[in-house]
Amino acid sequence: MAKRTIFFRSKPKIVGAYSVVGPKESESALRDYFDEVLSDDKFCESTFEKAECKMLSKAISSSIARAGYSEKDINAILSGDLLNQIISASFAARDFDISYIGIYNACSTFSEGIALASAFLDGNYFKNVVVSTCSHFSTAERQYRYPLELGCTRPPQSQWTVTGAGSVVLSNEKEGEYPVVSSATFGKVVDFGVTDANDMGAAMAPAAADTLKTLFFETSTSPKDYDLIVTGDLGALGTRLLKRLCLDNGFNIDENHVDCGEMIYDINEKEFQGGSGAGCSAVVFSSYFYDLLKRGKIGKMILMATGALLSTLSSQQGESIPGVAHAVIIEGVK
Amino acid sequence: MAKRTIFFRSKPKIVGAYSVVGPKESESALRDYFDEVLSDDKFCESTFEKAECKMLSKAISSSIARAGYSEKDINAILSGDLLNQIISASFAARDFDISYIGIYNACSTFSEGIALASAFLDGNYFKNVVVSTCSHFSTAERQYRYPLELGCTRPPQSQWTVTGAGSVVLSNEKEGEYPVVSSATFGKVVDFGVTDANDMGAAMAPAAADTLKTLFFETSTSPKDYDLIVTGDLGALGTRLLKRLCLDNGFNIDENHVDCGEMIYDINEKEFQGGSGAGCSAVVFSSYFYDLLKRGKIGKMILMATGALLSTLSSQQGESIPGVAHAVIIEGVK
Repeated sequence: MAKRTIFFRSKPKIVGAYSVVGPKESESALRDYFDEVLSDDKFCESTFEKAECKMLSKAISSSIARAGYSEKDINAILSGDLLNQIISASFAARDFDISYIGIYNACSTFSEGIALASAFLDGNYFKNVVVSTCSHFSTAERQYRYPLELGCTRPPQSQWTVTGAGSVVLSNEKEGEYPVVSSATFGKVVDFGVTDANDMGAAMAPAAADTLKTLFFETSTSPKDYDLIVTGDLGALGTRLLKRLCLDNGFNIDENHVDCGEMIYDINEKEFQGGSGAGCSAVVFSSYFYDLLKRGKIGKMILMATGALLSTLSSQQGESIPGVAHAVIIEGVK
Repeated sequence: MAKRTIFFRSKPKIVGAYSVVGPKESESALRDYFDEVLSDDKFCESTFEKAECKMLSKAISSSIARAGYSEKDINAILSGDLLNQIISASFAARDFDISYIGIYNACSTFSEGIALASAFLDGNYFKNVVVSTCSHFSTAERQYRYPLELGCTRPPQSQWTVTGAGSVVLSNEKEGEYPVVSSATFGKVVDFGVTDANDMGAAMAPAAADTLKTLFFETSTSPKDYDLIVTGDLGALGTRLLKRLCLDNGFNIDENHVDCGEMIYDINEKEFQGGSGAGCSAVVFSSYFYDLLKRGKIGKMILMATGALLSTLSSQQGESIPGVAHAVIIEGVK
């Protein structure tokens, strides 16, 4: 038994997925893959926070429908988000007659959830489990940084929080060919002493390198065994740091690494290092990658969402920003 | 297979526990059961938040030592707390070379963690897992309510957030007789429209009643099958409401129900309805109940921590306070 990696004997299937994104994200190169695009990032609600919650609820219910299920078939919702006390997830869960298991590891929550859900299904405790996360630029910005009305200049190392919600349904009972989860490697908290709350990529890259190194060691694989190694939201700078740290650790991911944060926005937009947020990996995976996996265009990939474990208060008290990254190995339809 | 209850075939053992509490909690009737009592609720740190984190780290490391293990034997730490972005848990996890899985369901996080850890162990994914939660009166009060310096009058329906951290080690490999976890029933989000952020008991009681009802139905048991039905921090008023809701649902828990929030403070102190916080059920279970279970004084109990899923922002935006409650069935040494 490995210390940090768990292997799924029955390989739980990902049988449904749904993504909702905001207006800005709809201009991305991935636009045709998103299931739903909002023309108004308030989603007809009175506040951005309520809009975020509504997006998540919509993603959850639609992913259940996509999987051909209804509420009564789902055993649990695993969900989390970036707002204080993960209120988007908690209030979205209120809409469903389904158990709610709240999780939080910042932007690595999506892969954390897939790992936990897979254990529930592989262990035969549950039949169908939903995993969903979200983020919203306007709620995150005003909670973590400055009031939106201030119009603060953003520094070049910053990323843009994705407005979007992604949801997947995992199952151990559904017939048919679907992408499957074969293992999960849980991350430990790694802190290299980064203190700049605008530089999430640098804060998260060391944790990402640690989890990848552990994954390769504990699964006896190397980067070349994967068609893709996908990180959540390291952004451009974080990706460069990760690649360097990987080389320092004796392996090279240059050829098959991509980052959801780098993919989601057009390079000509003003997001500097790219997208971030718990919704970033969730919407990119639930749309583009899920499509490729289902059509057999990806044989085997690593999905590793990365999280920066700060709060405004921890930064104000002079703390550095620790990171964490959870990885799951997902295999496409053969 | 039940919809919300999972059964553990191998019954994971609880092989170690440790509790740290603040000065006020040390005056409680349970004082002799706590492992460590702080004379200073800043625990020699510069802020209350750092003290909370240090308490949690201390509880985790000491519970591992109590179980006769060292860091290398532990596969994962499941942990959460009440602070924004669960920073106590995240920063405490930084002290350990162990995977960190962040969870959050407000004050029901402790039983949520025991349920998840038990699935990991029973499914044979991991050998040893730590579950730990904490809270601190001074950090919670100033985050959720008012600055401490204001000295606001507390209303009679309020509870007092427990300063303390509790940690348990669950194992599927350790030899010997220990308390075991036999099943878990996950809670769904229930909202009866309570909007008073000082009245946590009323907000959480409906979720507690729903989980209990589901547990009895899905495990084919009734209240009389348990020596004790222990809730986390409903307090005196919440307990009365729970008992009433149970009667409305056709079962009676009057004879064997106790609440950790009602137990932890002396009735003559000024906590009105009793204790609350994610540390409340954690310290009472890790001390008093764990001792009784280990000595065979309790045959079978339900531990159901209850959580109120609010944030200051959700309350400011006019939202009501939904509740959630996760229950685990724990059997004492025979």
